[in-house]
Amino acid sequence: MTAHALPAHIPPTMRAAVLTAPETLEIQERPVPRPGPGQVLVRVEAVGICGSDVHYYRHGRIGDFVVRAPMILGHEPGGTVAALGPDTSRHQVGQRVSVEPGVPCARCAQCRRGRYNLCPDVSFHATPPVDGALCEYIAADEDFAHPVPDKLTAEEAALLEPLSVGVWACRKGRVGPGSRVLVTGAGPIGLVAAQTARAFGATEVVVTDVAPHRLDLARQLGATATVDVGGGTPLPQALDAVRAGETPIADTDFEPDVLLECSGVPAVVGEAIRTVGRAGRAVLVGMGGDTVPLPLAHVQNFEIEVTGTFRYANTWPTAIALAASGEVDLDRLITHRYDLEAAEDALTAAARDRTTVKPLVLPQPA
Amino acid sequence: MTAHALPAHIPPTMRAAVLTAPETLEIQERPVPRPGPGQVLVRVEAVGICGSDVHYYRHGRIGDFVVRAPMILGHEPGGTVAALGPDTSRHQVGQRVSVEPGVPCARCAQCRRGRYNLCPDVSFHATPPVDGALCEYIAADEDFAHPVPDKLTAEEAALLEPLSVGVWACRKGRVGPGSRVLVTGAGPIGLVAAQTARAFGATEVVVTDVAPHRLDLARQLGATATVDVGGGTPLPQALDAVRAGETPIADTDFEPDVLLECSGVPAVVGEAIRTVGRAGRAVLVGMGGDTVPLPLAHVQNFEIEVTGTFRYANTWPTAIALAASGEVDLDRLITHRYDLEAAEDALTAAARDRTTVKPLVLPQPA
Amino acid sequence: MTAHALPAHIPPTMRAAVLTAPETLEIQERPVPRPGPGQVLVRVEAVGICGSDVHYYRHGRIGDFVVRAPMILGHEPGGTVAALGPDTSRHQVGQRVSVEPGVPCARCAQCRRGRYNLCPDVSFHATPPVDGALCEYIAADEDFAHPVPDKLTAEEAALLEPLSVGVWACRKGRVGPGSRVLVTGAGPIGLVAAQTARAFGATEVVVTDVAPHRLDLARQLGATATVDVGGGTPLPQALDAVRAGETPIADTDFEPDVLLECSGVPAVVGEAIRTVGRAGRAVLVGMGGDTVPLPLAHVQNFEIEVTGTFRYANTWPTAIALAASGEVDLDRLITHRYDLEAAEDALTAAARDRTTVKPLVLPQPA
Amino acid sequence: MTAHALPAHIPPTMRAAVLTAPETLEIQERPVPRPGPGQVLVRVEAVGICGSDVHYYRHGRIGDFVVRAPMILGHEPGGTVAALGPDTSRHQVGQRVSVEPGVPCARCAQCRRGRYNLCPDVSFHATPPVDGALCEYIAADEDFAHPVPDKLTAEEAALLEPLSVGVWACRKGRVGPGSRVLVTGAGPIGLVAAQTARAFGATEVVVTDVAPHRLDLARQLGATATVDVGGGTPLPQALDAVRAGETPIADTDFEPDVLLECSGVPAVVGEAIRTVGRAGRAVLVGMGGDTVPLPLAHVQNFEIEVTGTFRYANTWPTAIALAASGEVDLDRLITHRYDLEAAEDALTAAARDRTTVKPLVLPQPA
Repeated sequence: MTAHALPAHIPPTMRAAVLTAPETLEIQERPVPRPGPGQVLVRVEAVGICGSDVHYYRHGRIGDFVVRAPMILGHEPGGTVAALGPDTSRHQVGQRVSVEPGVPCARCAQCRRGRYNLCPDVSFHATPPVDGALCEYIAADEDFAHPVPDKLTAEEAALLEPLSVGVWACRKGRVGPGSRVLVTGAGPIGLVAAQTARAFGATEVVVTDVAPHRLDLARQLGATATVDVGGGTPLPQALDAVRAGETPIADTDFEPDVLLECSGVPAVVGEAIRTVGRAGRAVLVGMGGDTVPLPLAHVQNFEIEVTGTFRYANTWPTAIALAASGEVDLDRLITHRYDLEAAEDALTAAARDRTTVKPLVLPQPA
Repeated sequence: MTAHALPAHIPPTMRAAVLTAPETLEIQERPVPRPGPGQVLVRVEAVGICGSDVHYYRHGRIGDFVVRAPMILGHEPGGTVAALGPDTSRHQVGQRVSVEPGVPCARCAQCRRGRYNLCPDVSFHATPPVDGALCEYIAADEDFAHPVPDKLTAEEAALLEPLSVGVWACRKGRVGPGSRVLVTGAGPIGLVAAQTARAFGATEVVVTDVAPHRLDLARQLGATATVDVGGGTPLPQALDAVRAGETPIADTDFEPDVLLECSGVPAVVGEAIRTVGRAGRAVLVGMGGDTVPLPLAHVQNFEIEVTGTFRYANTWPTAIALAASGEVDLDRLITHRYDLEAAEDALTAAARDRTTVKPLVLPQPA
Repeated sequence: MTAHALPAHIPPTMRAAVLTAPETLEIQERPVPRPGPGQVLVRVEAVGICGSDVHYYRHGRIGDFVVRAPMILGHEPGGTVAALGPDTSRHQVGQRVSVEPGVPCARCAQCRRGRYNLCPDVSFHATPPVDGALCEYIAADEDFAHPVPDKLTAEEAALLEPLSVGVWACRKGRVGPGSRVLVTGAGPIGLVAAQTARAFGATEVVVTDVAPHRLDLARQLGATATVDVGGGTPLPQALDAVRAGETPIADTDFEPDVLLECSGVPAVVGEAIRTVGRAGRAVLVGMGGDTVPLPLAHVQNFEIEVTGTFRYANTWPTAIALAASGEVDLDRLITHRYDLEAAEDALTAAARDRTTVKPLVLPQPA
Repeated sequence: MTAHALPAHIPPTMRAAVLTAPETLEIQERPVPRPGPGQVLVRVEAVGICGSDVHYYRHGRIGDFVVRAPMILGHEPGGTVAALGPDTSRHQVGQRVSVEPGVPCARCAQCRRGRYNLCPDVSFHATPPVDGALCEYIAADEDFAHPVPDKLTAEEAALLEPLSVGVWACRKGRVGPGSRVLVTGAGPIGLVAAQTARAFGATEVVVTDVAPHRLDLARQLGATATVDVGGGTPLPQALDAVRAGETPIADTDFEPDVLLECSGVPAVVGEAIRTVGRAGRAVLVGMGGDTVPLPLAHVQNFEIEVTGTFRYANTWPTAIALAASGEVDLDRLITHRYDLEAAEDALTAAARDRTTVKPLVLPQPA
């Protein structure tokens, strides 16, 4: 298994955005990786910036995951196959791909049962100590470099990762035709979750947030009603008010079958679960600390199923189908684009500019 | 629909144990009920006393359910069909039956979907304002008066109700062959849950409690290991200690697939959920206040499904099969028997006598 | 339970289309039914004609169900609530409704488990000896007279019944976002099944038939590809040809995840199951005799799940949502409309006119 | 990744039972395989003989699988880890193991979804062109060499493979506490299926066969009733006769929830499916040609789910638990034992001796 020689037009080194210390991102020159057996070299054309990237940037850690050595950030890459490693067969050079950022061990009990997102030995982009994708080239397992149709741009290919989060949340919540869904939090994940819920057939998708411009965007992307919870009104009463208001929830007895909790705010979690109807599901997507209050009596009396999501498994085919068919609009989520040199701006964009929804970094030279 | 005349040997009145005020139980003479259409008259021979009976006795309410008028307690009746009402066809007089205490509306969305335990219009024994079964005769819907084979006693017929709670918990937790189960709390429900888990094929059933005599009983009834958590050691460490101890958990890497939480103690709930393995289920059976702490990060990282149980649906056939085959031993749970006149003693037994597991009241004259 | 007096404007009698012998439909004057407790009187404004109506008309029986006395045909009624019976609460007079034609016993094991379509004691319109809906008024259980929004016409309300067949088939087949579906047979059921599959998120819906005009309609209603199997080419080869043809199946490796078999032709059933991919589902909707050939080796090697559908359960809410949102177009299915007096023409339309897809009868005077 | 040297006590060559032509089994001297990375060398101590081995022996093929070059037969090996290959960590030398005979690719869509038995690129013992286990040593992927507790013998370890077939069938049929199961065919697979059904909690397990001694064994192993179908009586009537007979089915209305079809006889398949109750499952385990008759009307009217099984996935942990706990008795199935030199006798045993249930080959020198 000697490494293949890379094509001559691939340079020996590349630029990469490296987190060297909290709040310190350096653009470094790094060797272009050589794809190993079963891997392809992907020319990275767009990388979405995720809340976890921002969290690592600010704090140098997320819970038990601590950045102990310089690490390239970014785990939402879209691009093009630039070269093939040995023992590959799925792709041709030039194929546009969306790279699923986690490669599981494929042999543990979780992997064998189809729950590869729970693999304890997964290697995941930009989760210490694994480097991420904020750079010009990455080596990717060919089975996790998903081909996307030409109609999808590299930017949309990048955003299939957050879309996968939405697909997984809707699957966990068993969203289907006729479902009534409450999405709490209209950040990038809440917005893809709301769109995905619609694409899964939900007929009511009510989105809550404290930022009116995000609620506007939610409505444009298919939310059937939105609730501004910024005034301090508790959620149940806020829902009641909306029911009677000018842009009402169509179903005046709205009681969600499914909650997709995307805010990560502990008080919201508890309050939102209380609104879920009998035999409903509450899917906790937003990360928000170690412990949240669980309304036990409601969970018991209504037999609510509460679960959390950890990444996703087997979602790319569905995500590609939803994006390619136009049922989910990923392009509308992109509010800012940055060169690789400005990657640090992308990481601080949300703090600087309240209109930020999804910033992208475009690693290739302009 | 004129009422049928009752057979001559049925007396016109009967004794009943009536809750007239908190901590006040009166034995009153009441009319023997006349079975309506589709109902049978059941001669009540044994009634299990449940924690909810005790709670109503002490406090006159459980949450939003308030006893506003004198109410007969008891919802775990076993007995014999004494007379048939009009339009009945399922039973003959003399049939031993176990009466499922809740009769749902049969027409709402929950009922139509097979989740009749979530019917908002259910009529449930000894839940205000519906009278219960601590009396000599009750009228019961023939479809909810489940025939039991002769090998089961009326006392065992009574205890099919708590067994149903265990069956429902195991179904919700998807306990099956090879499951590894943690049962927190070895009261009557914990003990039936542990037995049911074994009957469902669980190969490891670890039971925790603070009372050594209950843990002894748990082992006799099939628990594969027990953990005394009375010393204040947190559960994870207590499990570790047991793993290394004299009567160890066989599986030294014990991580439950399923938690059946039967203690209702909020701190235990949160702590116990943290021990559940990847893709595991946590079934919250024990009632314990409005809110409990949910370990969000663990629920997300391991994608734990957390749910509560509310009574049961479609459990009697399975409960009868388990009791009749001997896979579950209900008789061993009965620690005390009382005449109807001593029903108040049954309600206060647990407080007086730490060896109490399950008290029964035998309403018929000796 | 004395019967309520009907409003004065309701006439005492009405016209009804009665099957008195095979191939003999008489328009008779019948009493307007009085709604019993829990029932409403529905003014019938449109009734879809189903293959089973035609079969009863021609043969006087379907399998073991034999028409032994004159029976009103029709089981797809849409209309308006004209009067309320005693003990009703769900509707007001004037509400547009779609009547689910089967009322189950609500107490048997099937009903209690939420599978009320399998209730052995169901009372179903136009299944002997129960009268159907080809008349001016019917009494309907209020819980099975589903309110529909104003945007749906009475004709569309009628066709929620066949749409329910499609919804049920898609549920049984677990059609979801990204599914690849093969629909064999483009009659009314095949056409609603194909539309429903698209509404459930299927990205490939390939429809086969022998009639080009039906295939045209399938494409207009959302089929992603169609296959004319009229030439005698076996299905697998026909699919291959289409893959390479002018209007190709987008996915060149098309292998259905789900087969919705709507032709009822035994040879087609066996052949179609052979095309289903690994872990796929084959849902047999079309009725086609007592026995069909099952390709055992394929079913085993690919672990195909094969099941049949019998009516539907809990489908109306979803069907209403799909029709109201416009995701399913029921209006396009209607090819012919008949007065009640011409109901016999409606029953013979398909034999006379190959362009017939769905004939409706409009029972009210013009 | 140079191959490790094997321990000195491992001989360089070994004896192997090689199928060189139909009905021709030769004992050949072959090199002891060297375990590759992630593999262990297993000293084979017992190998069960399966119907597929017999079929390859007689016909040189099973359907599309043709033996084109000499191939070692056998795919049910039990033994002991004799040496470790490079990059292994799960076992120590001396560990008793049961070897799962199929190693999937771990990267295709089927594998990623947890359905690795449907992997199109699986490498499976004794399926052409992969050699099997009828020899003294095999190299096995450490993840598929399942450790078994000391209380299980190597012979029982071998028979975990057929037990896995039973576990998989019961999972596919959703056998659980209280299930009523019909097992058609009391060969080795029928007998493990019946035992597994009991271990999964089935309360009625009725077994049919034409051989009285097999039915005797079925009863000894836990069948609750048996039916001799050798007299030509159709199955429904035979079941009726048994209901009324001397050793009756306890449930006089016996209608199976689950059919585990283990005979592979086409006529039996169709007839047996007709006996399954509403919403029941029919699991087709027995191989029996390309096509069998499917009773369409019954499958539709009762919404029977019919599926086939192909090997198994993720069954060993459960199989080990059932065998180790004694709930399934594998030892009772073994009727004959052969030295490796007599392997051909094992393959012809069933034809020679009607008392044969399960023959084993013991490859190690006596």
